[in-house]
Amino acid sequence: MSLDSLADAFHDGLCDIYHAERQLLKALPKMIKKATDEKLVTALTTHLEETKQQVERVELAFEETEKSPRAKKCDAMAGLIEEAQSMMEKDASPDVMDAILIGLAQKIEHYEIASYGTLCSWANSLGYMNAVEQLGENLAEEVNADKVLTKVSKSVNRAAEAVGR
Amino acid sequence: MSLDSLADAFHDGLCDIYHAERQLLKALPKMIKKATDEKLVTALTTHLEETKQQVERVELAFEETEKSPRAKKCDAMAGLIEEAQSMMEKDASPDVMDAILIGLAQKIEHYEIASYGTLCSWANSLGYMNAVEQLGENLAEEVNADKVLTKVSKSVNRAAEAVGR
Repeated sequence: MSLDSLADAFHDGLCDIYHAERQLLKALPKMIKKATDEKLVTALTTHLEETKQQVERVELAFEETEKSPRAKKCDAMAGLIEEAQSMMEKDASPDVMDAILIGLAQKIEHYEIASYGTLCSWANSLGYMNAVEQLGENLAEEVNADKVLTKVSKSVNRAAEAVGR
Repeated sequence: MSLDSLADAFHDGLCDIYHAERQLLKALPKMIKKATDEKLVTALTTHLEETKQQVERVELAFEETEKSPRAKKCDAMAGLIEEAQSMMEKDASPDVMDAILIGLAQKIEHYEIASYGTLCSWANSLGYMNAVEQLGENLAEEVNADKVLTKVSKSVNRAAEAVGR
């Protein structure tokens, strides 16, 4: 496939994040199941609900491209989820596993922050103002989810540090 | 491998970012070669130099763990680099490719921002104050590299948007 214009690159990037978000819809329930800390479970569950809406907003952002929504395998999110999967299979005390889960989730959030940041900026250059709105909402939710996880990490890290002392 | 304590998780995380940074040392020169915009070439070249120092700081951060520096395959960075590689192989005009390269580099920066954020916070909980210093410097450089790329993207996106108009 050739990317002859910024519009082509934008459509390709949308296909990438569309696949990434849908992969995440499958991975988040496994992370929630593995989490113990109540605030962490709540944060991840809230983000699962947000992710469902984000998929819909990405579908709306396709409209101005005049091409159909299509998912393109996102190698980066696949790698992030593979890493999460292999960490969740390790033996760890529940407090340490919670600290690990926060780190994994924040890596995923940051991937999405970078993706939506680029896509919003391209949509703006292209004058796709509906896409700017939809993807801007997703970006704001990702930034907020990352902040919530940092807040939750304070008590989780304290508990994890006390394990085995 | 079992992760019985936060110290174990910290050591495991260091092994992950150690491998990730070393993978990046190989990938960045390819991205620099593919870039056309002068400011982008400078930003990526500066970050390549920073990355060399970051590898050394990660090695220093291992000291307090009393375990040797070891690289552990980082699936997430492997996925990010695979994505970058496949995008760089596409046919695109130089201006559009520059816009794509910025997006790819920012995804990589954000992975590192999330990694160093978690590791700094864990090192702080563990009282590994030298690691906090070394990894804090790396974190600050990553945040700055991301900001520089956002700045460079303004003119690059304008040029990319004008392609084929």
